[in-house]
Amino acid sequence: MSPVYAALLHYPVKDREGKTVTTAVTNLDVHDIARSARAYGLAGYFIVTPIAAQRTLVEQILEHWRSGGGAKRIPERSEALSRVRVVGSVEDVREAVRALHGIPPRVLVTGAKPLSGAPLRTHAEERSTLRSTRVPTLIVFGTGHGLAAEVVANSDGVLAPIQPTSDYNHLSVRAAAAIYFDRLLGEPV
Amino acid sequence: MSPVYAALLHYPVKDREGKTVTTAVTNLDVHDIARSARAYGLAGYFIVTPIAAQRTLVEQILEHWRSGGGAKRIPERSEALSRVRVVGSVEDVREAVRALHGIPPRVLVTGAKPLSGAPLRTHAEERSTLRSTRVPTLIVFGTGHGLAAEVVANSDGVLAPIQPTSDYNHLSVRAAAAIYFDRLLGEPV
Repeated sequence: MSPVYAALLHYPVKDREGKTVTTAVTNLDVHDIARSARAYGLAGYFIVTPIAAQRTLVEQILEHWRSGGGAKRIPERSEALSRVRVVGSVEDVREAVRALHGIPPRVLVTGAKPLSGAPLRTHAEERSTLRSTRVPTLIVFGTGHGLAAEVVANSDGVLAPIQPTSDYNHLSVRAAAAIYFDRLLGEPV
Repeated sequence: MSPVYAALLHYPVKDREGKTVTTAVTNLDVHDIARSARAYGLAGYFIVTPIAAQRTLVEQILEHWRSGGGAKRIPERSEALSRVRVVGSVEDVREAVRALHGIPPRVLVTGAKPLSGAPLRTHAEERSTLRSTRVPTLIVFGTGHGLAAEVVANSDGVLAPIQPTSDYNHLSVRAAAAIYFDRLLGEPV
């Protein structure tokens, strides 16, 4: 089984007009995706922002839940947040995973719409691949209006969108991450 | 196809010790589950709280997004929130669905752990049932530490938990709702 990691990017991502921007970290993205990652057995979850002040803020939130008042009050939250790390770039994530496993991860990107720039991977293909390799895998999620083209171009593959034929593809990233984890790693239904 | 509705209950739900309590409505539960419901073609999403002041608050939030400043700024959010209704009890939800369809809904409840008090429905069974009936279906989600026993006892069935053999079953209700919608209503992967 591949050790699977998730990363939530706050840069470089697109705004409504497609311009590259940095988004603000939101507390609930940290909590919700950490809980989903823990429930599906991911090896870790990286919050990625180039803004040092935001990294410090997230570290303080994590500290509260890992060993402060939050850990005593809601121990299961502490357990989920213990696997969260905060770094400055996708390169930092690759390097952190490489340091842990001796090889860099395969990087898969996600988006609400079909992305070009890397080979498309269906969920069934990827579910099977994750079970047949020990190479670590990194699943990258965007905030704002999705990942910038350079992130896609530097990836190893694009996961097919969720609900591609729906007339509404504006899931929250929290919902999308949960659904991707379930499709790729969930117990057979 | 069954018209499918979701309801998020803030009463009667359990606290950490199993006591019945009323929880506070949170803004993100309204938004995230509304977006997931819209993406998966649900017919409606009910926020349920017996506290009139909270219903008024949610109505004000909805008004902002349906026809106020929010609707102009993020039109797709307006579209998702247009299918949200705020009511005082599960009975009110049943009555609202009955008023729309002429028959009351089949009521299915959810929980992180196996619930007794109503017949268990696997996700595959329910996916098939939804496609073969025109009777409306209501999927009920709890907040806090899950639905009170009386809600289960008054339901027609219990949907099997997500990831039942995971050693961590503390998904957020936002993630759980997204995964249930995907398993029951998602496009074949």
